[in-house]
Amino acid sequence: MPIRPPSEDDVRELGEELFLDLTPDEVEFYHEQLTDNLEEYETIQAYDPEPRGPITRTRPRSPGTRLDDDEDPHNAWVTKCEVEGDAEGPLSDWEVAIKDNVAVAGVEMTCGSNVVEGYVPNADATVVSRLLEAGADIVGKANMDDMAVTRIGHTAFGPITNPRDDDYLAGGSSGGSAVAVVEGEVDAAIGSDQGGSIRIPASLCGIVGHKPTYGLVPYTGCVGLEHTIDHPGPMTPDVETAAEMLTEIAGSNAAHLRRPTDVPTERYQDALDGDVSELSVGVLEEGFDKPNGDPGVDEQVRDAIDHLEERGATVEEVSIPLHADADTIHEICTNEGLVAAMMGQGIGHGWKAWYSTSWVEAFGKFQRAQGYDFPPNLKLKLLQGLYTLSRYHSRYYAAGMNLMLELAEQYDAALEEYDVLAMPTTDVTAPEHDPDRDAFDRLLETDVPANTSPFNRTGHPAISVPAGEVDGLPIGLMLVGARFEDATVLNAGYAVEQARGEAGT
Amino acid sequence: MPIRPPSEDDVRELGEELFLDLTPDEVEFYHEQLTDNLEEYETIQAYDPEPRGPITRTRPRSPGTRLDDDEDPHNAWVTKCEVEGDAEGPLSDWEVAIKDNVAVAGVEMTCGSNVVEGYVPNADATVVSRLLEAGADIVGKANMDDMAVTRIGHTAFGPITNPRDDDYLAGGSSGGSAVAVVEGEVDAAIGSDQGGSIRIPASLCGIVGHKPTYGLVPYTGCVGLEHTIDHPGPMTPDVETAAEMLTEIAGSNAAHLRRPTDVPTERYQDALDGDVSELSVGVLEEGFDKPNGDPGVDEQVRDAIDHLEERGATVEEVSIPLHADADTIHEICTNEGLVAAMMGQGIGHGWKAWYSTSWVEAFGKFQRAQGYDFPPNLKLKLLQGLYTLSRYHSRYYAAGMNLMLELAEQYDAALEEYDVLAMPTTDVTAPEHDPDRDAFDRLLETDVPANTSPFNRTGHPAISVPAGEVDGLPIGLMLVGARFEDATVLNAGYAVEQARGEAGT
Repeated sequence: MPIRPPSEDDVRELGEELFLDLTPDEVEFYHEQLTDNLEEYETIQAYDPEPRGPITRTRPRSPGTRLDDDEDPHNAWVTKCEVEGDAEGPLSDWEVAIKDNVAVAGVEMTCGSNVVEGYVPNADATVVSRLLEAGADIVGKANMDDMAVTRIGHTAFGPITNPRDDDYLAGGSSGGSAVAVVEGEVDAAIGSDQGGSIRIPASLCGIVGHKPTYGLVPYTGCVGLEHTIDHPGPMTPDVETAAEMLTEIAGSNAAHLRRPTDVPTERYQDALDGDVSELSVGVLEEGFDKPNGDPGVDEQVRDAIDHLEERGATVEEVSIPLHADADTIHEICTNEGLVAAMMGQGIGHGWKAWYSTSWVEAFGKFQRAQGYDFPPNLKLKLLQGLYTLSRYHSRYYAAGMNLMLELAEQYDAALEEYDVLAMPTTDVTAPEHDPDRDAFDRLLETDVPANTSPFNRTGHPAISVPAGEVDGLPIGLMLVGARFEDATVLNAGYAVEQARGEAGT
Repeated sequence: MPIRPPSEDDVRELGEELFLDLTPDEVEFYHEQLTDNLEEYETIQAYDPEPRGPITRTRPRSPGTRLDDDEDPHNAWVTKCEVEGDAEGPLSDWEVAIKDNVAVAGVEMTCGSNVVEGYVPNADATVVSRLLEAGADIVGKANMDDMAVTRIGHTAFGPITNPRDDDYLAGGSSGGSAVAVVEGEVDAAIGSDQGGSIRIPASLCGIVGHKPTYGLVPYTGCVGLEHTIDHPGPMTPDVETAAEMLTEIAGSNAAHLRRPTDVPTERYQDALDGDVSELSVGVLEEGFDKPNGDPGVDEQVRDAIDHLEERGATVEEVSIPLHADADTIHEICTNEGLVAAMMGQGIGHGWKAWYSTSWVEAFGKFQRAQGYDFPPNLKLKLLQGLYTLSRYHSRYYAAGMNLMLELAEQYDAALEEYDVLAMPTTDVTAPEHDPDRDAFDRLLETDVPANTSPFNRTGHPAISVPAGEVDGLPIGLMLVGARFEDATVLNAGYAVEQARGEAGT
C-alpha cells in the first residue's frame, strides 16, 4: 500500500503536537524530507507482509456464531465456534472457552466492545496455539467487561449475570469465562488479568482462577491494557485442572526478545499433594477490614485459612501498610498506561515481541472512527491519564511505578518469611444486577473492591480458590507466592479445596 | 503539590485528542469525575516523594565546571567534576568519564542538548553507583551528539573533533567518551548505545567499545531513546579494560520487575586467553560492500579477520540478506519509538523499573518550553514517527518490530554455527568536520553508515575493536555473539588485538 505523503499543513500540525513550534522554513524543509523518506517504508513492504507468529491456517475451524438469549441465559458467550485441537495430547478430551480479548484466528474478537466488534484476527494467540497443540478444543469466545476496564460483568452486549443468582452480576472482566466453567459448558477457560480480571469473577462465581507469575505465560496475541500488568491464565472448576492447564501454556515465548533468559516451568499438577505441614502462611492484615468491604467475606476467608492451619500449616499475621493504598496507586498508573497503549493502537510501543499487525491496523482505525462508544470507565481513565500526562508531565505515573517497586520488595521480604500470603480475593460478594442502572450510574455506584491489582504490578503469582459463601453468594481466598513459585501457590490452594471438601462446605 | 483541576474546556480538548467526541453532558460528567478523582493522586504524594534507587547523598562530590576551549581542544567534555569512588575495590585507581546522558547525582546532565541544559539529577544511574562501589572515580561528563540521535559528533555545544585528526569528527553519539579515552584523560568511559553509539565512535577514534547483551547491564538512570534498544557499556583503550569494567557493571537490577530471572554474569577478564583455535567466525556478507561504504574499510577489516584465521580460528562466509535492510527498518521503528518516549517525558511508559521522577518532571517541562531547539534529526524522526503513527496507525512500526524478531532468529541460527559474526563496525572512516555546514546540511550530507543498529534491536552482544587505519583514520572490526556470550565476544576481540600487536600494526 502506498503511503500518502504529508501536506505542509500536516507537518505544521504534527510539529504543534510535538511542541516543535516549526518556522515556515522548517515546515518546508521537513515536508520535503518526510516525503522523500517515505520511500524507506517500502523496505518493510518489500518483505512478506504476513504476520509472523503462531498462524494456524491449516487447522479446520468455524468462524462461529452468536447465540440466542435462551441458549445463553447468563450472556456468557460472544461467539460459539469450533476449533479442534490435536488428536493426541494431555488435554485431548478438553473443551475450552477463550476470553474474547485473546485471539483465535478466523473467529471474531470483540473485547466486549462495540468499537472493536467486527475484527477477525489472522493468528492464534500463543496460549491458544499451545492449548490446541495440547489437544484441547476451542468451543467459543467468552464475554467480558467492555474493553476489560471494569470488574463488574458489564459488556457492550449486556450484563453477564451470576450463575448462582441471576439478580447478581458475574464480576469481571473475565466474567463469561467464569460462567462457562460454573455451568459446566467447558472443562476450563482462559481469562486475562490486568488488575484482577481472572481472580475477581472466579471469586464471585465460585471457581478457581490463577494469575501466573508475570512472564510465565506469554501474552502474545492477547489484547491488554499495559504490557507491564497483563497476564493470561486458567479459570477452572478446581485447582488440579488449573495446574494441568498451566503446565501446557507456561513457558518462554521464543519470539520475545525482551526476556533475556528462559522462564522456569514444571509439571504443576505434580506438586499437588495437599501437604501443607511445611507451609507457612502470612495473613495480610491490610487485605482485610476494608472501608467498603463486607465483614462476612473477611470472616469466611479467615475460616478457610483456619482449615489450612488445621491441616498443619503455620499461620501468622503480617502487615504491609502500603498494600492498603496499592489499588489506588495501580489505577493511577493504569490511567496513563492506557493512554500509551491507545496511542500505540491498542498494543503500545516497546513491546519487544510479536505484534499483530492486523490488530494494530484495525484498532487504529476503530478508535479514530468510533472512540465515542468506548465505555465510560475507559473514557474517564483515558481523560484522567492524558490530563496528568500533559499537565503534570507523568510525575504521578513515575512516582506510582516507583511505589510499586517498593511494594514488590515488601512482598518479597514477607515471602522470605512465609511461603504464601493470604487474603480475600474480593472484599465483597457479587454486585447486584440492576437493569435500570445506566452506564454512568454503574461507574459511580458499582465497583468490586479487591486485593488483586497490586500483584499485577509486582508480578507475583496469585490464585483465587473458593472459600465458601456469604448470603448464598460465593467468595474466594487469594493465595500469593514468590515469583515463579506458582506450584507452591497451587498446592496451597489445593489444600484449601481438600479441607473444604472434607469439611463438607 | 496540589493538582490544578481541569476546566471543562480542558476535558473537551483531551476528549478530542483521544477521539472520544464527547457530548456536552459527557464533558460535564467527566469534568466532575476528573476533579473528584484528583484526590486519589494525593495518595502518592502522601508517601515519601524522594526517588528510590541508588541515591548517593553521602558520597562527597563536586557539581563540576565547564572547561575553556584550550583545556578541551576536541570538545570532549560537557562538565569536569569529581566524585570519589570507594577507597578499596577492583577499579580503585581508575578515573572514568560518564556520557552526559547517564545520571551522576549532583552534576548537571545535558544530553548534549540546549533543551535539557540545566537539569541536575538527584540519583546516580545504576552503572555509576556500581563503578563508584568498585572504587572508580568519576572525573567528568562526556560530550555527546545532541539528544543521542546522530552518529556524527555534533552537539549543541559544538562539534567533537577526532583526536587523530582535527579535520574530522569523532563520530557518535558517545563521541566525548571516545575522545577522553584516546587522549588518555581517563582509564575508561561509559557510553550508551541505541543504534551504535558506543561502537561507532570507538571505531572512528580507534578504541574498544562493547555493547553488552541487552539486559546484562541495567539502563536505570540513563536517558535513552527506547527501552527496547538502550544499552550502556564500556569504552576503553583495550579489550582487557573493557572486560574488567563490564565485570563491575553487569548484573540484574534488583529494582527491575520486568526481568523474570537473574541474568548470567561472570568475571569477563578471566575469559581472555586469546586462544581462538576453537573459535569459528562467520563473516557476514551483507556487512560488507555497502552502497555508501568505503572499500578500503572492508579490506582492512578482512585483514583483521585473516589474523584470527592465522591464529587458528575457522573462518567462513555467511549470508543473512535481511541484514542489508536492517538499519533502515531499525530507523523506522525508532521514529515511532521516539514519539512514545517523548510522550512519556523522555522515559516512556511501561518501563517496569525505577523512574527518575526528577528527570520525568524536568524533561516534561523542557520539551514543552523549548522543543524547537531539539536537533533537526530528532525533529525529523519525531515528525516522521507521529505521521505514520497517526495516519497509518503504527502498521509500519509493528511490521518493523516483527521483522526484527525474524532477523534475531536468523542471527541466532548463524550463531548456532559460528561463535561470532564478523563485519566492519562502520562502513566508512570518520566524517569530515566542515565548520561551514549548518545543522540542516549535516542532516542531509553527513551520516555514518554502520552495521551496528540491528544488534540493538536483537540484543546480541557486539564489540568494536581497532582493525587498523584507512587514510590515516582508524576503523573497527565488529564481533557479535550469542546473547549472554559476552565473554566469547570479548575474547575474540582480545585475540584480534593480540594478533595486531604481534604484527606491529
